[in-house]
Amino acid sequence: MTEPLTERSGRVAAARKLTRRSGRDAAGAFLAEGRQAVSEALATVPEDVREVFATEAAAAAHRDLLAGTTVPVRLVTEKAAAALSETVTPQGLVAVCALRDVPADDMVAAPPSFAVGLAGLADPGNAGTVLRTADACGAGAVVFGAGSADPYGGKAVRSSAGSLFHVDVVRSAPLGPLVAAVQQRGVTVLAADSGGEATLDELGAVLAGPVLWLFGNEARGVPPELAAAADARVRIPMRGRAESLNLAAAAAICLYTTQRAQG
Amino acid sequence: MTEPLTERSGRVAAARKLTRRSGRDAAGAFLAEGRQAVSEALATVPEDVREVFATEAAAAAHRDLLAGTTVPVRLVTEKAAAALSETVTPQGLVAVCALRDVPADDMVAAPPSFAVGLAGLADPGNAGTVLRTADACGAGAVVFGAGSADPYGGKAVRSSAGSLFHVDVVRSAPLGPLVAAVQQRGVTVLAADSGGEATLDELGAVLAGPVLWLFGNEARGVPPELAAAADARVRIPMRGRAESLNLAAAAAICLYTTQRAQG
Repeated sequence: MTEPLTERSGRVAAARKLTRRSGRDAAGAFLAEGRQAVSEALATVPEDVREVFATEAAAAAHRDLLAGTTVPVRLVTEKAAAALSETVTPQGLVAVCALRDVPADDMVAAPPSFAVGLAGLADPGNAGTVLRTADACGAGAVVFGAGSADPYGGKAVRSSAGSLFHVDVVRSAPLGPLVAAVQQRGVTVLAADSGGEATLDELGAVLAGPVLWLFGNEARGVPPELAAAADARVRIPMRGRAESLNLAAAAAICLYTTQRAQG
Repeated sequence: MTEPLTERSGRVAAARKLTRRSGRDAAGAFLAEGRQAVSEALATVPEDVREVFATEAAAAAHRDLLAGTTVPVRLVTEKAAAALSETVTPQGLVAVCALRDVPADDMVAAPPSFAVGLAGLADPGNAGTVLRTADACGAGAVVFGAGSADPYGGKAVRSSAGSLFHVDVVRSAPLGPLVAAVQQRGVTVLAADSGGEATLDELGAVLAGPVLWLFGNEARGVPPELAAAADARVRIPMRGRAESLNLAAAAAICLYTTQRAQG
């Protein structure tokens, strides 16, 4: 019987560095915590999972999940699991996965018919939620523009609920050149903008063709120069008295409307 | 020049009790923090605003907002403002407002053509976001069923972004009897359910008539007996690989689809 690794062990200390963006970039890896994320990682990209840390309790609870894998599973103490967690209630199960973003050039060379770009979307929970919604609605790629939350941060991974493993992710890309490049390849770029000149309901046929949606910062929206470069600035018509929608709610409405048009 | 009230003053101590649900129920009042909430309260229901607390800095910054009001404005210290805040960065501006929910019987006697019920929706941020989305999409009432987050809690008020002052709110209502009562008055009750037998896209004409949407707990969904009592259990069709949507995102899609059908 192996003794569980403590938070002072070299392996755990190395993995703990992945809770910071600088540590993730240096090691080329990130942490996926909890049953859903670990299960998606092992099912979807087993070759990208370097190791799994589990407390004895978690290893017993998730025996079915870990039994079939060839990935090394390391037993850790509760305290070590807490050191690797970014939640108040650590789940005792964390996978170390290779960063999986694709180069912006690859995405531009063959843009999917439905993609999303985040322009300074700051909250990691919102970023993960939009990634999850984009996945659900059939988008092929999500671009995290400079200034947006890191898709590999703990809260973003958790909010994405496994979608990080389904969709092509492009990271830290300058969105200006990317927008110009995909437009040249026939993609219509739409900026979500509560003051936009077009309404979502009147886009019609445009949404059936290749589109890239841009969502901006929670408070400031899509940066003006990027909104100006888009083919249209699109607002969601509202019958009620609310001045605006929450960003993740607005994105859900735009992306689902696109799914329906492309279906 | 009046000396600002400290956190030990009777008025601030009394207002601080409103950060807890028991304190709000005892006093029949809640706190609305920040410019947007205070501005909506003063514009929409000035008679329900009992007093406003402001730091000297906030009173200066929001002079335009406070100048025209007959509501008493009390200067407070930064520390007192922090004691009244539930955020990490207190905004220095808080209104004490009378609770404004309407009795369930009133809502049942004359149900709006578009209403929302929350069945055990636990996260206050989600609850406030769904209230905001319901407002934006033209819903007339939101029922916070037993076990749901309190719409008057700090985080729910903040997430609602003023919509608490626009929509009829029913609080702590037992949803079972309410569902039966509105069904008798011709309202179609729809339970959002990722395993539902109906899809959102096929509801068509049903959404044009009077409807009550039910959204459940983030993890467990709508309670089974309530889902069974609904006229239909409705899933959102998904083209992608995500297993499910975030609750607030799913609600946004259902409510916006309803707005379009009723428009």
